[in-house]
Amino acid sequence: MDHRIRQAEAYLDQCRHQVDRELDRCLARNATSERLQETMRYSVLGGGKRVRPALCMAAARAMGSDESTALAPACALELIHAYSLVHDDLPAMDDDDLRRGRPTAHIAFDEASAILAGDALQTLAFALLSDAPALSDRQRVTMISELARASGHQGMVGGQAIDLESVGQQLSVAQLETMHRHKTGALIEASVRLGALTSETVTECQLSNLTDYASALGLAFQVQDDLLDIEGDTEVIGKRQGSDAARAKPTYPALLGIEGARQHLARLLDEALSALESFDSEADTLRAMADYVVARSH
Amino acid sequence: MDHRIRQAEAYLDQCRHQVDRELDRCLARNATSERLQETMRYSVLGGGKRVRPALCMAAARAMGSDESTALAPACALELIHAYSLVHDDLPAMDDDDLRRGRPTAHIAFDEASAILAGDALQTLAFALLSDAPALSDRQRVTMISELARASGHQGMVGGQAIDLESVGQQLSVAQLETMHRHKTGALIEASVRLGALTSETVTECQLSNLTDYASALGLAFQVQDDLLDIEGDTEVIGKRQGSDAARAKPTYPALLGIEGARQHLARLLDEALSALESFDSEADTLRAMADYVVARSH
Repeated sequence: MDHRIRQAEAYLDQCRHQVDRELDRCLARNATSERLQETMRYSVLGGGKRVRPALCMAAARAMGSDESTALAPACALELIHAYSLVHDDLPAMDDDDLRRGRPTAHIAFDEASAILAGDALQTLAFALLSDAPALSDRQRVTMISELARASGHQGMVGGQAIDLESVGQQLSVAQLETMHRHKTGALIEASVRLGALTSETVTECQLSNLTDYASALGLAFQVQDDLLDIEGDTEVIGKRQGSDAARAKPTYPALLGIEGARQHLARLLDEALSALESFDSEADTLRAMADYVVARSH
Repeated sequence: MDHRIRQAEAYLDQCRHQVDRELDRCLARNATSERLQETMRYSVLGGGKRVRPALCMAAARAMGSDESTALAPACALELIHAYSLVHDDLPAMDDDDLRRGRPTAHIAFDEASAILAGDALQTLAFALLSDAPALSDRQRVTMISELARASGHQGMVGGQAIDLESVGQQLSVAQLETMHRHKTGALIEASVRLGALTSETVTECQLSNLTDYASALGLAFQVQDDLLDIEGDTEVIGKRQGSDAARAKPTYPALLGIEGARQHLARLLDEALSALESFDSEADTLRAMADYVVARSH
């Protein structure tokens, strides 16, 4: 297990270098507004583990694709994730002032710049996919369609809306799961699916197994996030410890207890790994990523 | 001239019916969050002249395409326009409480719902294009790329950033034009280009002429907007009369005088019509739209 976690960390590092270089290039073009461009760069290039890009590239590897073909979708996924964080942190939303150990975009710049930067980061994600090198038009169109479905009102944004409506509400575990499946799960599923779609020979059955893997992993990620919010330390997790509880947000430990949440996490890890049974050793990076998600400390 | 304006109004009516029916259908799917869906519907279906969809469909007609192939891009353009209005109206941006004669989205609902609805409307625009019926994958990818470029940080959102930075500043006519070319011009150009791209035989030269037409038309639209803001009546224009001047926003009449702005408008109309010289009578709807933009009272 320790070996697999180190393997995942090394893979995350490697993906982060590639993705950060590509994102830096995408955001370095002539600025229409320097302030807007600076806000976009600050929001995207200020750290982050790049879990979604790494999942995308690991799924491409699992399908035997050249991983470089997954770079554009990997960056598009990170841009969508980055835009959602910028908007989620806004005063009218979660009103957070700290993210990845630094002031949030609307604090470092201003609220209008943060709104516009988020908007433009979303647009850039679709621009990047529409011009993705080494992918056919069919692949680009399919990926754009999947990314849009995962991140729009029936996916991530829908989940964020449920989340805001849930503050102060008593949710059941099932309702909490529905919220997370939309808010974070849909994009994690898309990360794995877009990676797999770099292969022209991927089958419906393979896609379905990979989606099951990602679905369990996405929930596991959230359970671990909830546990870290209670047990973690602000300096290590990069946001205020206990901030969920302070806002009376429903969490797994609140519903299941800390021990119950840990058991739930272990079950989800099993589920994720079982979904990969039909894959050979090329899926080992995906397996390592699952171990990492459950064991991570930030 | 009067005849052409009536022709444009009839065409706008006809397009509005088709586009509104299609948008209603796109926004009627199962809601993840009812409040989010209601905010999206309120923001899109609450009126509006649908100038961009009509330009898109008229450009398809000018190229001899079946206009129904332009319906998806026309709706995508309107969704981008609608999202930009919702976000521009937010308190941290233009802080407007009235739009199209009704409370703005963040007043009718709340700020978080308005931010999320705007986000999801943008996503939906790209989803719609990626699934557009009767278009090839190549056409979809090209349209997505063009729409993203026109609406992102190097287009519409970039222009909105310049606009916010310009409040209270003394701009030259050239600087004002740069702002408008990004903020509204880029999307109007994209409207005409996406319509033309429904034809598989459109040439670079035809696209270039149509872009020149749209570029002049976009600026004319803005000059007329500025004139209406001074001369119009709140009830007819659907937003507060004099609201630009009240925020010390730079305008054409402020820089050129009312008479100078009117002359500028006439020159732009000439420019738009000249760009269509090589097109036959199939482009008459585009010609009528130009007359309409200059003569409109709201």
